[in-house]
Amino acid sequence: MKSFTLEELAKRVGATLMGDGSMRISGVDTLDEASENDASFLANIRYREAMKTSKAGVICIDTETEPLDGKQYLISKDPSRAFQIIAELLRSSRESTAFTGIHPTAVIDPTATIGKDVNIGPFVVIDKKAVIGDRTTISAHSFIGTSVTLGTDCHIYPSCTIREECQLGNRVILQSGCVIGSCGFGYIMDEKGCHRKLEQLGHVVLEDDVEIGANATIDRARFKKTIICQGTKIDNLVQIAHNAEIGAHNILAAQTGVAGSAKTGHHVMMGGQVGVLGHVTVDDYTMVATRSGISKSLKTGKYRGSPAIPIPEYNRQEVHVRKLKEYAERLKTLENKLANLPK
Amino acid sequence: MKSFTLEELAKRVGATLMGDGSMRISGVDTLDEASENDASFLANIRYREAMKTSKAGVICIDTETEPLDGKQYLISKDPSRAFQIIAELLRSSRESTAFTGIHPTAVIDPTATIGKDVNIGPFVVIDKKAVIGDRTTISAHSFIGTSVTLGTDCHIYPSCTIREECQLGNRVILQSGCVIGSCGFGYIMDEKGCHRKLEQLGHVVLEDDVEIGANATIDRARFKKTIICQGTKIDNLVQIAHNAEIGAHNILAAQTGVAGSAKTGHHVMMGGQVGVLGHVTVDDYTMVATRSGISKSLKTGKYRGSPAIPIPEYNRQEVHVRKLKEYAERLKTLENKLANLPK
Amino acid sequence: MKSFTLEELAKRVGATLMGDGSMRISGVDTLDEASENDASFLANIRYREAMKTSKAGVICIDTETEPLDGKQYLISKDPSRAFQIIAELLRSSRESTAFTGIHPTAVIDPTATIGKDVNIGPFVVIDKKAVIGDRTTISAHSFIGTSVTLGTDCHIYPSCTIREECQLGNRVILQSGCVIGSCGFGYIMDEKGCHRKLEQLGHVVLEDDVEIGANATIDRARFKKTIICQGTKIDNLVQIAHNAEIGAHNILAAQTGVAGSAKTGHHVMMGGQVGVLGHVTVDDYTMVATRSGISKSLKTGKYRGSPAIPIPEYNRQEVHVRKLKEYAERLKTLENKLANLPK
Repeated sequence: MKSFTLEELAKRVGATLMGDGSMRISGVDTLDEASENDASFLANIRYREAMKTSKAGVICIDTETEPLDGKQYLISKDPSRAFQIIAELLRSSRESTAFTGIHPTAVIDPTATIGKDVNIGPFVVIDKKAVIGDRTTISAHSFIGTSVTLGTDCHIYPSCTIREECQLGNRVILQSGCVIGSCGFGYIMDEKGCHRKLEQLGHVVLEDDVEIGANATIDRARFKKTIICQGTKIDNLVQIAHNAEIGAHNILAAQTGVAGSAKTGHHVMMGGQVGVLGHVTVDDYTMVATRSGISKSLKTGKYRGSPAIPIPEYNRQEVHVRKLKEYAERLKTLENKLANLPK
Repeated sequence: MKSFTLEELAKRVGATLMGDGSMRISGVDTLDEASENDASFLANIRYREAMKTSKAGVICIDTETEPLDGKQYLISKDPSRAFQIIAELLRSSRESTAFTGIHPTAVIDPTATIGKDVNIGPFVVIDKKAVIGDRTTISAHSFIGTSVTLGTDCHIYPSCTIREECQLGNRVILQSGCVIGSCGFGYIMDEKGCHRKLEQLGHVVLEDDVEIGANATIDRARFKKTIICQGTKIDNLVQIAHNAEIGAHNILAAQTGVAGSAKTGHHVMMGGQVGVLGHVTVDDYTMVATRSGISKSLKTGKYRGSPAIPIPEYNRQEVHVRKLKEYAERLKTLENKLANLPK
Repeated sequence: MKSFTLEELAKRVGATLMGDGSMRISGVDTLDEASENDASFLANIRYREAMKTSKAGVICIDTETEPLDGKQYLISKDPSRAFQIIAELLRSSRESTAFTGIHPTAVIDPTATIGKDVNIGPFVVIDKKAVIGDRTTISAHSFIGTSVTLGTDCHIYPSCTIREECQLGNRVILQSGCVIGSCGFGYIMDEKGCHRKLEQLGHVVLEDDVEIGANATIDRARFKKTIICQGTKIDNLVQIAHNAEIGAHNILAAQTGVAGSAKTGHHVMMGGQVGVLGHVTVDDYTMVATRSGISKSLKTGKYRGSPAIPIPEYNRQEVHVRKLKEYAERLKTLENKLANLPK
């Protein structure tokens, strides 16, 4: 593995070095886990204690933080960013893929438009009239349907499926196995009690800087579009149903499910395994704790529980539920006292 | 995009036109969202208010519904069906896939039997003695295992896996990424505390008109079969474990999980993120609300909660839980009163 | 289908036969479901009643179990193991895949190292410097990233993705569609309120005898590694987040999710749809019931509920919740009595 001296790192990240410029760093890790060959960082003063005991070779801190004796520092305005740059430097020095450029096994329809400096891996399939933006990478076994458009600088990991007519913006990342544009789950029951499929004629829009997790599924709309707005990050195994509108800069953690036609504002955050009922609206900046169930529209706030209620209310309710045994005993005591009152 | 005049649409769907036969329709949408180029429909008199304000170019209604002035109508016995036909007409006019017929890159074992008018996409793999029925489509990157049988008119979307010996009926639809016939999750612990795999010797049967969602998983049985009966629709990311028997015409919404050897009757409906414990039975026509946990067998009815209880009971319980703070205060008040009684 | 005589089976499993050695067995099933051509077994004396009514052609029992008249037995020390051997004998007699050896369509980088007697299916992709151990099978459409190592006797089912640098031990089984080494879900918010991706520089380690279910996802670590220790079995659609450490010989049932940096001891068991919060620790031999939510570290024990609490406590709480209606009525009665007391 490649390594960098502290002097090189200070230059690359634009930080002031406090320590031995000739020391070499070959990895990155958290304060707790870092060894003497690792860089680490203090993002939050709460972790100051961890800094004291850390064995990291160098620690990125901000200009407000007081350095400790016997440790080495890279001091800058934004230590998270400094650390991020180091992490990426070390990453770029790793072994890369053999599959750059357009692999001869890829099947690309002649009506598709392929941008400049595109990478298309082995066994990729690109259907009619698809448009692939400049510098986009489509890895092995991925499928790009008819009339799909991908912007520039996208990264499609192996085995993704993007069905016909879906539109991806710039810098979109799809983790392996995710499915964009599967049919929405819509049926009408006929006179014999059979569910007849409602054709799902719409598509999916993923705006700029969206990331979709491994094996997540985003259904196409029945009409018009299912949309994930810019900058939103969706984790593994999440389900987004037809006609849902997920606002900008949302974070939806793993295994969360959003039912049909639900809408979220911008900067909404949901923990893992949350469920959102169809047709509800979740306002901007709302935070929803893991495993919550959203059964009605939510105003901006912090929620927990199933059905989800404001967190302070949830906490009070939890205390009361835990005290139920005590309440039942006190109730019995009162009944006995009252029964034994002199008439 | 292709378009149709109202006169053409009236003929195609067998409806009576009320309006200008030369007007053109190029899309479909709900009453709320439709523009003047869209067809829409009124399926339920509850939405009559939406019809008043709709901008739809034409609205499908039934013969009982009173038309409003200034709007155009296609009047028939079954407006949902009329609308569905229009939706499908418009769909078939869209750009199609380049991959019809049998793609030269597909790897098909010579012992496999391929029906008439079958489509097999790029990089499809078909193993020994598989049988593919007439007019079935198998899209790119799908895998059909040894001795698998597919009926007629099936549609297998890209990247599905159907493992050896599974049997699919006619008109079965598999959304992308679903896995049919993965090994059931069965182990026995040996004397050293290690879990030894129990070979899963059975298979999976999907009867006629079954649809399985994107990235859903249906495990093969340990012996005999896991079965999904005719007409049942299963949504994305659902898990059906080994030896489960899902009855006919069920609807199981996204991220629901059914454990081993559980059975459902016919016309059972489950919301999203429901969990069904192993070996329980759910009777015909039972409806289970989203996020419920079924921990014992259920008679026909409507259920909610985890563990799932009848909905009226669930609602009462919820009210009491929300009132716990009040109850605790009333308890305290009583205790104080009793303590202050004159002796 | 091949079949075996009882005499042959007795020899193969090392059991004493009680019955007609010339009778033939062609299948295996549970006591309840077995027909006269099936072998079955009694693993637990609790199922003795099922043995009485079973139609199985032969039943594997241990030396302690008293045989019943009119039935045939294979008597050994470990009837589960005897039955398992019979099941595997019957399995190996089924039709096999056409794709043994290295398929000519596979794309294998010349810098990869391929062991002896390896099977590589159609359209498999193996990137730079990957190492594949002896007798390992990689089925159709699977992707093996740069510098990945696979041990000996692994079985990778169709359409798996193993991203760069992940390390798999010996006898690892991956069910179809699972993704090993997808990017961990980590972002930092910049000054404009945008989530910037934190590069995930680590990898995933799956130790010997690990099995991962269909469409399950195991994220790579931000630094260092996400690890699943030896002998652990993970079911379909499970999510393991970055930097998690799953101990040895765990059983995690379907749709369970483990958040970042959580740790489990050895021999932990979790039912389906369980959620584990980030950074918590679950001690050795802990059992967690289906649909539980683990929100803090757990000492060895049995837990249920969300948040998960010890099972006896959970059961008591459930009883109190169900009695809330009664408590509310008793409270009202007390209030009335007290109001009606003579002054």
